[in-house]
Amino acid sequence: MRTINVGIIGLGTVGGGVARLINEHHDDYLANYGIDLSIKRACAREDSRLDELGISAEQFTFDWHDVVADPDIDIVVEVIGGEHPATEIFEESFTSGKHVVSANKALLGRHVEHLAALAAENGVQLRCEAAAAGGIPVVHALEHDLSGNGILTIAGIMNGTTNYILSRMANEGLGFDEVLAAAQAAGYAEADPTADVDGFDAASKIAILSSIGFRTRVVTDDVYMQGIRNVSAEDMAQAADFGYAIKLLAIARNTPTGVDVRVHPAMIPVNHQLASVNGAMNAVFVVGDAVGETMFYGAGAGAFPTASAVVGDILALADPLSHGIAPVPEAEPFDANLPVRDMLDLHTRYYIRMTVDNTSGVLAQTTRVFADNDISISNMSQHDGADGSATIVYVTHIAQERNLQAAIADLEALDVVREVASVIRVEDIDAWSRGVMDN
Amino acid sequence: MRTINVGIIGLGTVGGGVARLINEHHDDYLANYGIDLSIKRACAREDSRLDELGISAEQFTFDWHDVVADPDIDIVVEVIGGEHPATEIFEESFTSGKHVVSANKALLGRHVEHLAALAAENGVQLRCEAAAAGGIPVVHALEHDLSGNGILTIAGIMNGTTNYILSRMANEGLGFDEVLAAAQAAGYAEADPTADVDGFDAASKIAILSSIGFRTRVVTDDVYMQGIRNVSAEDMAQAADFGYAIKLLAIARNTPTGVDVRVHPAMIPVNHQLASVNGAMNAVFVVGDAVGETMFYGAGAGAFPTASAVVGDILALADPLSHGIAPVPEAEPFDANLPVRDMLDLHTRYYIRMTVDNTSGVLAQTTRVFADNDISISNMSQHDGADGSATIVYVTHIAQERNLQAAIADLEALDVVREVASVIRVEDIDAWSRGVMDN
Repeated sequence: MRTINVGIIGLGTVGGGVARLINEHHDDYLANYGIDLSIKRACAREDSRLDELGISAEQFTFDWHDVVADPDIDIVVEVIGGEHPATEIFEESFTSGKHVVSANKALLGRHVEHLAALAAENGVQLRCEAAAAGGIPVVHALEHDLSGNGILTIAGIMNGTTNYILSRMANEGLGFDEVLAAAQAAGYAEADPTADVDGFDAASKIAILSSIGFRTRVVTDDVYMQGIRNVSAEDMAQAADFGYAIKLLAIARNTPTGVDVRVHPAMIPVNHQLASVNGAMNAVFVVGDAVGETMFYGAGAGAFPTASAVVGDILALADPLSHGIAPVPEAEPFDANLPVRDMLDLHTRYYIRMTVDNTSGVLAQTTRVFADNDISISNMSQHDGADGSATIVYVTHIAQERNLQAAIADLEALDVVREVASVIRVEDIDAWSRGVMDN
Repeated sequence: MRTINVGIIGLGTVGGGVARLINEHHDDYLANYGIDLSIKRACAREDSRLDELGISAEQFTFDWHDVVADPDIDIVVEVIGGEHPATEIFEESFTSGKHVVSANKALLGRHVEHLAALAAENGVQLRCEAAAAGGIPVVHALEHDLSGNGILTIAGIMNGTTNYILSRMANEGLGFDEVLAAAQAAGYAEADPTADVDGFDAASKIAILSSIGFRTRVVTDDVYMQGIRNVSAEDMAQAADFGYAIKLLAIARNTPTGVDVRVHPAMIPVNHQLASVNGAMNAVFVVGDAVGETMFYGAGAGAFPTASAVVGDILALADPLSHGIAPVPEAEPFDANLPVRDMLDLHTRYYIRMTVDNTSGVLAQTTRVFADNDISISNMSQHDGADGSATIVYVTHIAQERNLQAAIADLEALDVVREVASVIRVEDIDAWSRGVMDN
């Protein structure tokens, strides 16, 4: 048994959590698993928290090259985020025979295929459990525990900030802007909330998870992305009336016509497991053709939850290394070459809220538009508004996105329609389990 | 890369599912992971389903010794259940250098420590993902993904039959006997439902999970066990009035004074994630000191869900074996030697339903009993019954089980109390997360 040397690059929330967790549990890992983890070097742009993190002056460096170039280091933990120098840290670590553990969803959402191939070429591993859904061990479940399955669907709540905002909007009847401001004041949302609120963060995660789960190349730019800025308190109330909750879902389905991958607000039945995921928690549904529906729930962010995933990856590498065995290289995971489906080919149900002139012909004219576009209606509600207006809400049966978009354009062209205020997809959850084997 | 030879002993629901899943996905495993699985031998007591399972006459044998003695076989899958000859199959497989994958919760609930030690002595692995919560990958999460954590609590719904019964009782207002009979007729419950209904099955599973999670020895006989036979439609309705659902929970907590491990009906808030786990589904909460609360949800039984876990274990062994590498032996996992706590030391809240004489002094007399036993009351409801009786329901604040048992004896000794009809614990869920690190 030998000491396993770890180099941590980045000592922010996640890196600091990793340092503190290893220091806290070092003796347990040794006693329980015979693994002696040592933080050989730690790198950051500033050194003000070193005492708090238990990092000595000898361990610390401002220059990441000192970590990557250290021949004693077995495992590099990259937790600085961003594209550069993270990319160079990966590349130089791999070529010098070091394994990399990373939580960098933005980088991996774009380049996981390239970086994983580079790791495999150099006979080392790239592990990224913390890059999707924080402490929830869903990456490993997709790579290994559920590997007996064909994975049909990966879908869920993968961004804590937006789920916190939507939960408060639903529970307190507040508007988006109001809750966002409160979330920013409380530190639950960034000063620039774009990456969370507009869906980029969730898109990066579903790109990583679908690449791994479907063994194909899905990058963040492949993901249809729509954020939650246009979800209103009125939509929340209307959804509740229809028996739905509104959640920002990241969804990837492995369909016969290609990968259906998207991030957008969606209505789901209030009694669905995902509807009761509140606050900043995350939950990921994975449907396998053998196991059927599974769900993994937990904290998607935070210092220690994310560190739990990073340290889990470190220990998985350290276990064989401690026994003098090189970790088995991962099978080339991204070679399925599945096409990504056009969003216009989506079939689902839709909720449409519009403001119209409160005249006798308005229902006939608007329902005619849906009929002309091959869309049938399952629910409707109308109530009077100010200035001779009325609000009409339609919920459709399953329809094609292409037809729905055409219908929206036709509706907006009608004189009686003042505004199509909101279009929200009602997710066809039954489709997630299409292809599960009969027992 | 070499073919990995598997021998399956038992071709019932699980074994048949394993054979069909491997046959169905053989080419995928080869293409995706470079793993060529071959079912070299398969053993059962009868051979009527061989065609359906894709097992040839050459593969089949009635004698399990033919499987264990075959020098070509790498991995033995034991899915016959029961204690004998399963024990001998484990022992002879290990001594002949074969890894064992098993779903045998009854055997492992009693002897996982002994069998795991025997595997380690022989340099092979015992894997049992399917033995607890079917297809849900919680065993592996405890062994590896969450290994950076100290595990504080493992708790959840681990028996599908009882959850099916309780769900129907809650949703349809039916009594236990009625739903059990319907469940038996529909094949959801066995003709002899004892192992499910009286908690033995869930106790085996929590014994296995707590042994692995807490790295100590917990056997089924250590688990306090109370089934659901005494849960009535009236309790269900009363619970709903108080905002609770009643679930059969298996709970293991790693406390400073020992392992608190038990299976019993429990009331939990209706808005808790576990309350919305319906029908035959299972869900396991795992609380780690770093990751906090996580939950794993899925099918706890069924041919393909269980086969998913078995084949996941087979592939985890086959991956290194295919590369000519022996799987790393598991660290000795059961050496923590934690004491198992006396059930009388439990602190939780209690629901007590009793039938009393409808007289003016009855509230004073019964509340006096609680006060005398150091138990304070948080909720009370009373309603009139037939024959000059009344039903009183009390819900206590946190109290000690020892005091509660004494109070029940005192209540039963009162002349005005006709019957203490029901005592159900109201689980102190906050206690599950005691010890989680602050972020």
